[in-house]
Amino acid sequence: MYSQEMYKYGSQSSVIRQIFAYSQARAQVIGKKNVFDFSLGNPSVPAPKAVRDAYETLLNEMSPLELHGYTSGPGDASVRQAIADDLNERFGTDIEGGNIYMTCGAAAALKIALCALYEKGDEALTLTPFFPEYRVFTESAGYKFVPVESEYGTFQPDLNKLEAAITEKTKLIILNSPNNPSGVIYNRDKLVDLAQLLYEKQKEYDHPIFIIADEPYRELTYGKEVPFIPTLYRNTIVCYSYSKSFSLPGERIGYVCVPPEVVSSQDIFFAVCGAGRVLGYVCAPSLAQQVIKKCVRVRPDVEPYRRNRDMLYGGLTRMGYECIAPDGAFYLCVKAPDGNTERFCERAKKYELLIVPGESFMAPGYVRMSYCVSEDTVRNSLPRFEMLLEEYKEG
Amino acid sequence: MYSQEMYKYGSQSSVIRQIFAYSQARAQVIGKKNVFDFSLGNPSVPAPKAVRDAYETLLNEMSPLELHGYTSGPGDASVRQAIADDLNERFGTDIEGGNIYMTCGAAAALKIALCALYEKGDEALTLTPFFPEYRVFTESAGYKFVPVESEYGTFQPDLNKLEAAITEKTKLIILNSPNNPSGVIYNRDKLVDLAQLLYEKQKEYDHPIFIIADEPYRELTYGKEVPFIPTLYRNTIVCYSYSKSFSLPGERIGYVCVPPEVVSSQDIFFAVCGAGRVLGYVCAPSLAQQVIKKCVRVRPDVEPYRRNRDMLYGGLTRMGYECIAPDGAFYLCVKAPDGNTERFCERAKKYELLIVPGESFMAPGYVRMSYCVSEDTVRNSLPRFEMLLEEYKEG
Repeated sequence: MYSQEMYKYGSQSSVIRQIFAYSQARAQVIGKKNVFDFSLGNPSVPAPKAVRDAYETLLNEMSPLELHGYTSGPGDASVRQAIADDLNERFGTDIEGGNIYMTCGAAAALKIALCALYEKGDEALTLTPFFPEYRVFTESAGYKFVPVESEYGTFQPDLNKLEAAITEKTKLIILNSPNNPSGVIYNRDKLVDLAQLLYEKQKEYDHPIFIIADEPYRELTYGKEVPFIPTLYRNTIVCYSYSKSFSLPGERIGYVCVPPEVVSSQDIFFAVCGAGRVLGYVCAPSLAQQVIKKCVRVRPDVEPYRRNRDMLYGGLTRMGYECIAPDGAFYLCVKAPDGNTERFCERAKKYELLIVPGESFMAPGYVRMSYCVSEDTVRNSLPRFEMLLEEYKEG
Repeated sequence: MYSQEMYKYGSQSSVIRQIFAYSQARAQVIGKKNVFDFSLGNPSVPAPKAVRDAYETLLNEMSPLELHGYTSGPGDASVRQAIADDLNERFGTDIEGGNIYMTCGAAAALKIALCALYEKGDEALTLTPFFPEYRVFTESAGYKFVPVESEYGTFQPDLNKLEAAITEKTKLIILNSPNNPSGVIYNRDKLVDLAQLLYEKQKEYDHPIFIIADEPYRELTYGKEVPFIPTLYRNTIVCYSYSKSFSLPGERIGYVCVPPEVVSSQDIFFAVCGAGRVLGYVCAPSLAQQVIKKCVRVRPDVEPYRRNRDMLYGGLTRMGYECIAPDGAFYLCVKAPDGNTERFCERAKKYELLIVPGESFMAPGYVRMSYCVSEDTVRNSLPRFEMLLEEYKEG
């Protein structure tokens, strides 16, 4: 009578959403400031002032018919050119406006890129830990989804395991750096070696293997370099979103970039356009497109996140928790003291600490904490984490 | 190396887009006011003032984190409730906020509803003439797409032909009234009979048959009643968009409504949520959602469209053109004088009149004119249409 597959995807809410729902119910009972909710990756730093100003200026200066009118499917030409220019200035690339396809955020970008590349029998790889929707997007597009374990304890790519996982059917590998849920940024050396491996495998199997660089956290970095993967590996397609950098997650604005160096770049761009059309994306929201054009050189204020990271990572490690040092994004992986994350999350709940078991991300033994919260939330949570750890010491 | 199917959908631009591109190039040469472009269904009446004001108020009054933050997948609860309340007031229904799923416009709504309902082997029917993307959305979702001819000359549903087209595999029928490209509104009597037929066929085949009511033009009507199909037939799912009524086509905001009377309404709603998730729609644009809430009782000013319709339909019929009388939307079907639409469109080009052959819409022998243009464009086009018709009289 209806699609059982879609019903399954729609009725099983994610663990994160379940915890968030619990958090909201709990806040009703004990007050919001007494709930320490580290579950959701929802930015806590407001949109930059330039973004706010751009909205106002555009509403005052552009005619509503132009501002709110259809753009072409790939987006407004001047918006796309502005993004290309900015990428070229920062990374020395030769991307053109015609290589940019505006999307309703990174989820749409990923889904569109995956559908554009898919051929029957294809396999899509990714490195653990990873954003759980990767499985949903790849499998529903037809791919066999193959997670490859990273180096345990650092969550840098494990090239031996990656090599073993690549087969004749490997179409692409999704890379996400800075990483959700670990905050890890892949080292340049590792990425160079990874590129080398893919070049060899392309040759061995005589067909292209693509990297899909999922980069919503590119600008959320605390000093460490985030290499721009297209400069390291030709067949890289970039998926970007302004959700995190501009704190606009609800506005759904991002892009797919198919650089000119990608094999059959123009044809793949057409396939991207076709996938967007087939999936029902007529164009990315037009007002948001214009906001991006006006703010294309604006970078986010990461200091609040950095302060939270330093306080949380510093505090927890001093107490004795084992953590993965995060260089970017606003996530921290903390090891459950006895390795049992489910028990850890349940015990944490008694202290009103809400954290997510890493198993959803294939980070077994770890929990994910999103520190896109107020500084007070981080500060006031620390004594509670200390008491929680004491429980474990007492056995 | 990439999806041939997506490449095909992305590289073949529609006839309408081709004509529009020609129009833009031509405007460069002879000036915009000398090109009479009736090709695109892009609203020419600016967004209502209330919509403009709502944008401004929201940017001033709501905190940016709240205004631009993620909503839940189906949308902000208060927005959904406001839409349900408005529908109930207007149509005497018992729709709840929980029956509304906010989408990125009607294309997304349609695609999501189609994917939510699809099971292997299903057939999707629609009545001619129809929006060409129906074929793209249904076929790419897996359906066999079955167009059913309407009564020629009125473009009202032909129930005999519809009955003959329904098989055991018929899952749904897409209805679009007011209709693109004809502007025809289906008569209440016809819809009552159509519902009766579907009830019988449901019984005969012992499974539900759904109506998907695609209603972006609901509010663009010039006096004739537009029956709300869920009040005539239980298993009706409504797809709506604010693109045309609020002149916000670029903002991508609309909804799917699965009324409580629909069989397994709650499960189908879950399937809708799952389809939205799988297709990469995280949520509908958040600022636009809030604008809709503020303006949910605002109705568009249709007078400029009515004036254009009266001038164009009146003018062309007085000259001797055969037209389908349009009661809604902003489209008019005009018969090619000798039945050859391709030649008609080519000849029209000499007078800088840009119109679309009806074959793309399965309206053979007719051309589509979109009269969402300035009044001057309509007025100044008429002498040219007269000269064009003279050519035919001269043979």
